[in-house]
Amino acid sequence: MHKSSPSDLNDEQFMKRALELAAMALGRTSPNPLVGCVIVKDDKILGEGFHHKAGTPHAEIHALAAAGDQAHGATAYVTLEPCSHFGRTPPCADALIRAKLRRVVVAMKDPNPLVAGRGLQRLREAGIQVDVGLLLKEALLLNETFIKSITAGLPFVVYKSAMTLDGKIATETGDSQWISNEISRQYVHQLRDLYDVILVGSQTILQDNPALTCRLPSGKDPIRLIVDGKLVIDEHAQVLTSSKSSPCIIATSLSASREKVERLRNLHQVEVWQYNTERHVPLEKLMRDLVQRGWISVLLEGGGGLAGALLQEKLVDKAEFFIAPKLVGGNGPSPLSGLHIGRMADAISLDNLCIGMETGDLHVTGYIRPKGLD
Amino acid sequence: MHKSSPSDLNDEQFMKRALELAAMALGRTSPNPLVGCVIVKDDKILGEGFHHKAGTPHAEIHALAAAGDQAHGATAYVTLEPCSHFGRTPPCADALIRAKLRRVVVAMKDPNPLVAGRGLQRLREAGIQVDVGLLLKEALLLNETFIKSITAGLPFVVYKSAMTLDGKIATETGDSQWISNEISRQYVHQLRDLYDVILVGSQTILQDNPALTCRLPSGKDPIRLIVDGKLVIDEHAQVLTSSKSSPCIIATSLSASREKVERLRNLHQVEVWQYNTERHVPLEKLMRDLVQRGWISVLLEGGGGLAGALLQEKLVDKAEFFIAPKLVGGNGPSPLSGLHIGRMADAISLDNLCIGMETGDLHVTGYIRPKGLD
Repeated sequence: MHKSSPSDLNDEQFMKRALELAAMALGRTSPNPLVGCVIVKDDKILGEGFHHKAGTPHAEIHALAAAGDQAHGATAYVTLEPCSHFGRTPPCADALIRAKLRRVVVAMKDPNPLVAGRGLQRLREAGIQVDVGLLLKEALLLNETFIKSITAGLPFVVYKSAMTLDGKIATETGDSQWISNEISRQYVHQLRDLYDVILVGSQTILQDNPALTCRLPSGKDPIRLIVDGKLVIDEHAQVLTSSKSSPCIIATSLSASREKVERLRNLHQVEVWQYNTERHVPLEKLMRDLVQRGWISVLLEGGGGLAGALLQEKLVDKAEFFIAPKLVGGNGPSPLSGLHIGRMADAISLDNLCIGMETGDLHVTGYIRPKGLD
Repeated sequence: MHKSSPSDLNDEQFMKRALELAAMALGRTSPNPLVGCVIVKDDKILGEGFHHKAGTPHAEIHALAAAGDQAHGATAYVTLEPCSHFGRTPPCADALIRAKLRRVVVAMKDPNPLVAGRGLQRLREAGIQVDVGLLLKEALLLNETFIKSITAGLPFVVYKSAMTLDGKIATETGDSQWISNEISRQYVHQLRDLYDVILVGSQTILQDNPALTCRLPSGKDPIRLIVDGKLVIDEHAQVLTSSKSSPCIIATSLSASREKVERLRNLHQVEVWQYNTERHVPLEKLMRDLVQRGWISVLLEGGGGLAGALLQEKLVDKAEFFIAPKLVGGNGPSPLSGLHIGRMADAISLDNLCIGMETGDLHVTGYIRPKGLD
């Protein structure tokens, strides 16, 4: 643990800056973590850096390059334990040692239980003072998707829904345009930009024929993943061709028509993942396969059936509700028709709730608390 | 309007105190308004008072009594225009004139269009400086129930509901205990203490057999009003006998059994209001009749059918939702089944939203925005 000392306030300020730098690559580094680094001597920043993208240099390397020879005797603030192994780039711990740093302050250990602590050990063996745990909470939050994937082999899944204040995702005649206001809908494009994968059920595609792209000028399209056990998707669905930059994946089962699978596979950017199951797509397996491909964060949009099934299988980590301050009543659909909980006492609880009205709609986010852990 | 001056800050401070005093009688003054009064000379408070209960002295009279002869040349801060007519008590304007005040600061005019301004005129004619409009917004909010009743002849109706974050008031098996947490449920007893009438439909009585009393140690039971067009209520329902201090009123129609009406009327504290309609209770007429009896604020609890009908007839002023941070899914009931709006664009909007988490549940309040006024 990081020990208190008179320089604590400055330490915090520099670590905050490192976290800020790390966050600049939000949504761009999967399957790698977000990492920021600041190199400081005599309270002056000599170099800054962050990890931009998997396969490119790590944060420490950028910061060391900026600091040059002045790094000698300096302190490095890094949001994550420097790596000690050869991946696609050489170990950062060695680079810090070579640059003759005096002290390294680390927000959090590498969450991978197989490697955690080795980078720190290497630095300490080289005579560098190492302090760990500064702004730990912030660092954990920043890398929630990476931590989930590296520790569980599963992606971090966020369920997003929009509804009226009386809990409806459409009126009783089926009208759903629009529930949330324009600013909330714009924010959803920001979410799409930040998550690797956007996940919907086949019913959503049939009913709304959405493009599921990110419409922000500098945004990136997420991978579009459609769970479609019986392969009922329309071969002219917009989602199949809406993005030039990211694939559209259809997860299906043995009940899919062989010819339709072939025709879809022939489309540019379309992949069909056919599981060896009768009718339903095995959701946990599907999630693990995403991580295998290096996609570690999933935005689950709409589709009460699919969302319910994922919640029931405990595959959802977080929920974001946009609640429009309006009432429509009636017996129109509710957001989670596919979840079936009989006793109120067994309800799925959310915690670490965060509420806001920055878009003019109510915006409620919370983390799913697995039953039995509370 | 109140004009800016160097003494504004002190003015505000004293008017705030007057509003605070007025609020001490929240839920106790119907059909009268809440009023507070502070008498000040040389920045020193000489007397304070508030209106406790209809038929007892007004705020100004309490404050003048406390100030005694020192009121001569002082300033009075009153949250509402002093009355100029003989009601159950003599006019306060005259009392202020007799006490030889130099200045009277008033937050808001009397909202009754028939009398507004006469109290102010009387004071001015007696040579007293009168400033009106200080903390007007706060004063309007404080007396929202009184203002509605005096200007529209209708009570101020607050719809209160508790639901899960996915919009359910019960699981699909019908389990609804408990949705909101204990602190939220305690808060509902505070609401019951503050409103004159608690209103439910006959289905709620049949299903839950609630007492509908206020369980706070110093609380008062609201009048229990049950809309029961066909008079299906169980003659042993708890609500009929649960309060010793406040009546239980059953509103019904011509389709009620004559014998059952008679039997219920024979119960202590029970009134049956039978309307000259075939099956449905005329809701607007019922609301007007409440005001005629001096009951000006209504807490509408539960009953999707009744709440929907009142909303559809534009008889609801405000909504309070307690949203528990939990998910149950399924096709269980939603809060407003009796409201039927076909187009999302025609949804009933809420504004002046206020959100909080003081109870641990989400607490959302908003004012109903009548369609066509936005």
